[in-house]
Amino acid sequence: MGKVSVVKGILDANDRIANENRALFDRKRIYVINLMSSPGAGKTTLVEKTIGALRDRYRIGVIEGDIQDTYDADRIASLDIPVVQINTGGGCHIDANMVREALSGLDLDNMDFLITENVGNLVCPAEFRIGENAKVMILSTPEGTDKPSKYPLMFRESKVLLINKMDLAPYVDFDLEKARRDAGAINPGLHIIEVSCKSGKGLEEWFSWIGSTIEEFKKSST
Amino acid sequence: MGKVSVVKGILDANDRIANENRALFDRKRIYVINLMSSPGAGKTTLVEKTIGALRDRYRIGVIEGDIQDTYDADRIASLDIPVVQINTGGGCHIDANMVREALSGLDLDNMDFLITENVGNLVCPAEFRIGENAKVMILSTPEGTDKPSKYPLMFRESKVLLINKMDLAPYVDFDLEKARRDAGAINPGLHIIEVSCKSGKGLEEWFSWIGSTIEEFKKSST
Repeated sequence: MGKVSVVKGILDANDRIANENRALFDRKRIYVINLMSSPGAGKTTLVEKTIGALRDRYRIGVIEGDIQDTYDADRIASLDIPVVQINTGGGCHIDANMVREALSGLDLDNMDFLITENVGNLVCPAEFRIGENAKVMILSTPEGTDKPSKYPLMFRESKVLLINKMDLAPYVDFDLEKARRDAGAINPGLHIIEVSCKSGKGLEEWFSWIGSTIEEFKKSST
Repeated sequence: MGKVSVVKGILDANDRIANENRALFDRKRIYVINLMSSPGAGKTTLVEKTIGALRDRYRIGVIEGDIQDTYDADRIASLDIPVVQINTGGGCHIDANMVREALSGLDLDNMDFLITENVGNLVCPAEFRIGENAKVMILSTPEGTDKPSKYPLMFRESKVLLINKMDLAPYVDFDLEKARRDAGAINPGLHIIEVSCKSGKGLEEWFSWIGSTIEEFKKSST
C-alpha cells in the first residue's frame, strides 16, 4: 500500500488557511482583530462605538459572523462602513476559511483596520485562528464572576478583555476584583479595561489601546 | 469491494445513545430535563431554586456539564442532592454518551426527576439529544431582544423558555413583547415564563409547570 497522508485535524487545516490570511493582511498592512464574547455581551455596540471613534484616522472594514440573518451587518452598513456578513448556517464559530471567502467582498487595498465579530459563544471561537493580529474578548457583568474559571481558553487566548456593562454592576452580583484576579491568573499578559458601552465609561482607554496598537503595527510593517 | 457501512454522522451516532438513555429513564420512570442557556443566564441558580421547591415531593438528581472545574456541582452537592459533574475538557456541549457515563454515578432506582445542566452556550447544546423528556432554556434580559432571531434552533427545540433577570429589565434595552413574539414565531408551542431568580418573581409558575408535567409523566408511565 502507498503512503497514506493524514490531515492531523480540523485545527491544523484551519491554521494553514489562517496563516495565508495573515500573510495577505501583512502584505496589505491591515491590522485585524477577532472580537469574541457570549451572546449579548455587547460586541456589535462596541464595534459601532469603535468605528465612531476611529473612522477619521483609519479606513475600517468589518466582517460580521452570525448563524443566520444580517441584523448586525445591517447596523454596521448603516454607518457607511464596508461590511460582509458570514452566515455559518448553524455553526457556532467562524473559521479561517469563512474569513477568506468573506475577504472577496472587501476592498483590502483601502483598509487599515479590519474588525471581525465572531458568533456569540464563549467556547469554540477561541479555538479557531482566522489570521487576526489580536483576539479581543468581552465579558459583561451580568454573566457573573465565575466565567474566567469556567471558560478559560478565551481568556488565555485574548490580548484584551473588556469588562462591559459596568453600568449594571450595582444590580448584579459581580465581584470585579475576583474576575480581574482570575483572568489575570489564566493570562498574566491580558490587558483588562472596564467599560460601559451604554454610558461610554472606559471606552477612551480602549480607543487609546487599539489606536496605539494599530500605529505600532503600521510602523513595524513599513 | 465489499459493502461499506457509513455512519451517517456524529448526530446519528448521538441519537442512538440518546434513545438508549431514554429507554433506561422510562424503565426507571425518571423525568429528565436538559437545561440550556448562554453563559451566566442563571442555570445553576434556577436548579438551586427548583430543588428547594420540589425536593419534598420528588427525589431529585443533577448532572452538571462544564468545560472544567466543579463549581456548579459543588453548589448542588452543598444542598445534599446527588450530583455528577461532566467535564467536557473543552467541548462546548454535553452529548448522550457523556450523560450515559455520568449515570453510573447516580442511583437511578431512587430518582423521580433528573436535571441536566448543559454547558453555557446558546448554539451547540440544542443539536445534541441526551435522552431528555424536555429541553428547557433560559434567556436573560441583559442578553438582548434579538436572541430568538439570531439563535433560533434552541428556541425551536425547547418546550419552555424562562426569561430570567426580569429584575434587570428596567436597566437594559429589552423589548419583552418583541422577544415573546419572535420566540413564538419560531416555536408556537413554546411555553414562556418571565422570572427573576433573584427576586423570586414568576418562579411559582415554573414550579407549577414542572410539577404537573412530572405528575403527567408518572401517570403515563405506570
